[in-house]
Amino acid sequence: MNNGNNSLNLIEIRDKLRKFAAERDWDQFHTPRNLLLALVGEVGELSEIFQWKGEVKDTSSFSEQEKVNLGEELSDVMLYLIRLSDKCDIDLSRAILDKLKKNAEKYPIDLAKSTSKKYNEF
Amino acid sequence: MNNGNNSLNLIEIRDKLRKFAAERDWDQFHTPRNLLLALVGEVGELSEIFQWKGEVKDTSSFSEQEKVNLGEELSDVMLYLIRLSDKCDIDLSRAILDKLKKNAEKYPIDLAKSTSKKYNEF
Amino acid sequence: MNNGNNSLNLIEIRDKLRKFAAERDWDQFHTPRNLLLALVGEVGELSEIFQWKGEVKDTSSFSEQEKVNLGEELSDVMLYLIRLSDKCDIDLSRAILDKLKKNAEKYPIDLAKSTSKKYNEF
Amino acid sequence: MNNGNNSLNLIEIRDKLRKFAAERDWDQFHTPRNLLLALVGEVGELSEIFQWKGEVKDTSSFSEQEKVNLGEELSDVMLYLIRLSDKCDIDLSRAILDKLKKNAEKYPIDLAKSTSKKYNEF
Repeated sequence: MNNGNNSLNLIEIRDKLRKFAAERDWDQFHTPRNLLLALVGEVGELSEIFQWKGEVKDTSSFSEQEKVNLGEELSDVMLYLIRLSDKCDIDLSRAILDKLKKNAEKYPIDLAKSTSKKYNEF
Repeated sequence: MNNGNNSLNLIEIRDKLRKFAAERDWDQFHTPRNLLLALVGEVGELSEIFQWKGEVKDTSSFSEQEKVNLGEELSDVMLYLIRLSDKCDIDLSRAILDKLKKNAEKYPIDLAKSTSKKYNEF
Repeated sequence: MNNGNNSLNLIEIRDKLRKFAAERDWDQFHTPRNLLLALVGEVGELSEIFQWKGEVKDTSSFSEQEKVNLGEELSDVMLYLIRLSDKCDIDLSRAILDKLKKNAEKYPIDLAKSTSKKYNEF
Repeated sequence: MNNGNNSLNLIEIRDKLRKFAAERDWDQFHTPRNLLLALVGEVGELSEIFQWKGEVKDTSSFSEQEKVNLGEELSDVMLYLIRLSDKCDIDLSRAILDKLKKNAEKYPIDLAKSTSKKYNEF
């Protein structure tokens, strides 16, 4: 099991994306709405992987190639999401911790246990 | 500037979400397509923040409340994305590093510089 | 069964939306990307209806209220889609007929029958 | 200007899609969530057309090929939307008329005129 030593942190990814854009002079294209629409495009590609599959409990039936594609599309969404947060001047780690705290208060363990009445979990 | 000491890493977030779900017995609801549709729902809420704004270069015109909302919606997308990756058995850090490498090869610095011919950047 | 006498046609809907916007002086807000992001927002709300349901074969298990909500969200997506097409100067009836013809050529009946190898149906 | 004589109505499109699926024995794949994810995929492709464009007032700067692509993606979203409505047993014309009425009541002409305070128009 991954103990986190090899796990990327959000600032590292943000900085890699900053460098990537700066080297190519692409900051000019990275406006919030451009990045948001690019993210929507990647969510579309992620959905295409699952669209004709019917319900799947996990990815054990996926071919190796499908697993690679899935990892790529998940990464694409992640990269645009982190880049969008950066260009919107949002401290994503701070925002995530705040949101996790809010979720824990909204769904106390004893009340939320096993119920499916959670149409807006987050 | 955030030097990364306070930045979350992907495994930490994954583990927080695992614990959150386990405590509430919610793993039963977290199938890949349920999580994917929940992610699409959050991308919709993120889009609503930008939908009537016209083009914005950054978020300097946003009110404090809009910035908080924006941070929450970005976090919601992130949390479902990491949870979906986990339930799909994808090592997201590995996948991201692979994708960044692939992008760097696809867009060599000297060829990609300043061009807008990049309709499928990632 | 509805014989089409009570069915709206696309031009009728387009014209109702033109009138609605003109009366409120809203054309100024209806730029292509504003409308597109609004559409993404509505697709998100549509997804929320299905997100925790697991696989459903049809909507026979939906409550009356859920059916009404579903009709509203489907309508919202439709209205933004027709409005977006109009503001993009696309003749949607023409485009749909062209696309149906293209699909029929791409998936000849005898070859496509019953196969699930159609990850990009349209 | 199109006077509606050549405009498709929603039942016509629904019936064309029913026939298309029946001839190919594809009803088995057209579950609500399969169709919904396919629709999300097409919204992603529609977004890709606009993602790096920055703000555009209209499509006068689009090439002929871009206009054709745009018409195809708009059609794809429309076709999945109508098919999804059909498989969900929703009378889309009825739902649209109800929603237009509700919108007119929510945004009375004299109050709504020219205001941008309409983050959830529909």
